[in-house]
Amino acid sequence: MRIAVDAMGGDNAPKAIVEGINLAKKDFPEIEFLLFGKEAEIKKYLTDEVNVTIVHTDEKIESDDEPVKSIRKKKQASMVLAAHAVKNGEADAIFSAGNTGALLASGLFIIGRIKQVERPGLMTTMPVFTGEKNAGFDFIDMGANADNKAEHLLTYGILGSFYAKKVRHIDNPRVALLNNGSEETKGSELTKAAFELLSNEPSINFIGNIEARDVFDGGADVVVTDGFTGNAVLKSVEGTAQAIMGVLKSSIKDGGMKSKMGALLLKDSLMGMKDKMDYSSHGGAVLFGVKAPVVKTHGSTGPDAVRNTISQIKTMLEEDLVKDLQTFFEESKA
Amino acid sequence: MRIAVDAMGGDNAPKAIVEGINLAKKDFPEIEFLLFGKEAEIKKYLTDEVNVTIVHTDEKIESDDEPVKSIRKKKQASMVLAAHAVKNGEADAIFSAGNTGALLASGLFIIGRIKQVERPGLMTTMPVFTGEKNAGFDFIDMGANADNKAEHLLTYGILGSFYAKKVRHIDNPRVALLNNGSEETKGSELTKAAFELLSNEPSINFIGNIEARDVFDGGADVVVTDGFTGNAVLKSVEGTAQAIMGVLKSSIKDGGMKSKMGALLLKDSLMGMKDKMDYSSHGGAVLFGVKAPVVKTHGSTGPDAVRNTISQIKTMLEEDLVKDLQTFFEESKA
Repeated sequence: MRIAVDAMGGDNAPKAIVEGINLAKKDFPEIEFLLFGKEAEIKKYLTDEVNVTIVHTDEKIESDDEPVKSIRKKKQASMVLAAHAVKNGEADAIFSAGNTGALLASGLFIIGRIKQVERPGLMTTMPVFTGEKNAGFDFIDMGANADNKAEHLLTYGILGSFYAKKVRHIDNPRVALLNNGSEETKGSELTKAAFELLSNEPSINFIGNIEARDVFDGGADVVVTDGFTGNAVLKSVEGTAQAIMGVLKSSIKDGGMKSKMGALLLKDSLMGMKDKMDYSSHGGAVLFGVKAPVVKTHGSTGPDAVRNTISQIKTMLEEDLVKDLQTFFEESKA
Repeated sequence: MRIAVDAMGGDNAPKAIVEGINLAKKDFPEIEFLLFGKEAEIKKYLTDEVNVTIVHTDEKIESDDEPVKSIRKKKQASMVLAAHAVKNGEADAIFSAGNTGALLASGLFIIGRIKQVERPGLMTTMPVFTGEKNAGFDFIDMGANADNKAEHLLTYGILGSFYAKKVRHIDNPRVALLNNGSEETKGSELTKAAFELLSNEPSINFIGNIEARDVFDGGADVVVTDGFTGNAVLKSVEGTAQAIMGVLKSSIKDGGMKSKMGALLLKDSLMGMKDKMDYSSHGGAVLFGVKAPVVKTHGSTGPDAVRNTISQIKTMLEEDLVKDLQTFFEESKA
C-alpha cells in the first residue's frame, strides 16, 4: 500500500503534513509513503525514514494558481509529480492539502476518470449532530462541477452508497436527493429527472428528497446534489458557522467582566462543541470517480487531520473501492 | 393606505397577528386595515376598531395544504379573500404569516404579475454581521421558482436594486451575483449568462460575483440567485444555525454546574447575539414582481415582527415601489 503525498500543499506545509505522516507511520506500519517536495525541509520534520521515500522537487502549486494552467505549466510541482506517481503505478493513491482546483485537475487529467463516470464528483463526509459518535452523511458533488445532468446525480448516488458501505461500514445506506422540498413532486427540472433515475436504480436504497435544513439531523447517509448547489450549500454552512462564532465572540467581548467570566466557565463546553462539529475525524474530501483515491484536506489542516485522512485512504485501498466500482459499472452496463 | 391582512395565517393566529396590528395601529394611524378571518376570535384580541374593517370568514388555508389547489378550492379562505381585496382595488397590499406556497400562488394567480416580469421572485433582507445597525442584503429569489433563466436573474437584480434604494434608502446599491467563485470566469452556464446580462444593465450597480461564504460580510446590498439555489442557501443557513445552537445547548447541559453558571453569566450576551441575528426588524419576505406588495412573515411570528412588516409595507406603498417599477419596465422596453 503506497500513498503519494504532496508534502508542499497547504498553509502549514511541509511541517503539518510531515508531522501528520509521522503519526500515520506509527499507526499504520504497513503503508509506504512517497513524499514529494523540498527534501531538506521535509527531513527537518520527519522522525525517521522507515517506509518513506522522499522525491525532491523545488516547484510547487500555490493556493491562488489557476488550476488547469498550473498543472500544465508546473510539470515538476510536488502535486503534479505525486499524481504522475499514481498514474504510473508507483503509488496507489494521492493525498494533498493544497490548491483544490489543481488537485481536481490532476485527478481528472493525469490520473483519469473511470470510463463510465462521465463527471467525477467531490465528496466529503459531513457531521450530523444527533449525538452518535462519528455520525455523518456523504455529500456529493460538493463542487467539482458547475453544471450537472440528472445522469451524473444518479452516478453520485451509486458512488456515495459504495463509499458509505465500504469505508463507513454502513449496511444498506440511505441515499437522499437534496431538493427544494421533501415531497416527491418537488424540484427543478434537474432534480425531478434525477429523482426518477435514482428511484429506478436497484443497487441503492433511495429514500427520496431531503431539504438542506434537514441534512444535519441524520436523516440520510448519502446526500446527492449537483456541484453548483453543493458548493453553495457547503459555503453557506461555513459562512453561517463563521458568522455565528464571530457574533458569539463579539457579544462576549462587549458584555464586560460578567460575560468574560461566563465564557471562561464555559470554555470546556465550547471546546467540546468544537469537537462535535469537527469533521476532520472522517478524513478529507475525495474526488470520486477517478482511477485511484484522490484525497484533499483543508489547507489549514493540522497533523491529526492528516493522520485521519491517511487512515481514510487506507480503508479505501483495503476495501479495493475503486476496483469494485469499476467492476460494478462494467457489469451494470453489460 | 389600506392593507389586507390574513388574520388566520401562522402558528399563533389570530392572536399574534391581531396583537401586531394593535401595535401597528398605534404607530401608523394613517393606515386602514382589512382583517380577514373569524370575527369573534379577531375581536377577542383587537384593542379597538378604529381604522379596522373585519371581513368575517370561517375558511382558512392550512400550513400543509397544497398551494395551488387550496387557493382554487377554498374560495372563502381568509388569504384568498384578502388577495381578492387587493385585486379589486379595495386594498393596496396583502400581508400573511400563513402557507408560503399558497401566498405565492395568490400573488401570481389572483393579484397577477407585472407584465414585463416573467417570473416574480421571493425576496428578503438578510442580516449581515458587520456591527452596523440594520445592515443587511436583499436576497432574491429565495425560492419562488424551481428553475430560472438568466433573464430572470437580470430582473431580480433590477427588482432588488429598486427595493434597496426605495425601501432601505441605500444610494447606488451594490448588486452581486451568487456564484461558485468570485472570479469573473466562474460559474454554471446559467450564472455565466446572467453575469453577462447584469454587467450590461445600465440601471444597476453590478459589482460581480459573490460566494455564499461571503454574503454575511456586508460585501453587497443585493444578492441575486435562482430560486433553487436561493432556497438551498436559505435552508442551509437555517439548518446550520439551528444545529450550532443545539450543540451549544447540549454542550452546556453536559458540562455540569460549571457550564450552567457560565451560561447564566453569559445570558445577556447570548440574548444580544440573538438580537443581532434576528432579521425580523427588516420585515417579511416580499413576492416581488406582482402588481401590489405581497408580504409574508414567518409562521411562528410574534406581534413585534407583524408590526415591523406593516412598517415595511407602509414604506413600499409610500414610495410607490410597484408603480415605479412598472414605469421603469415600460420605458426600458420601449
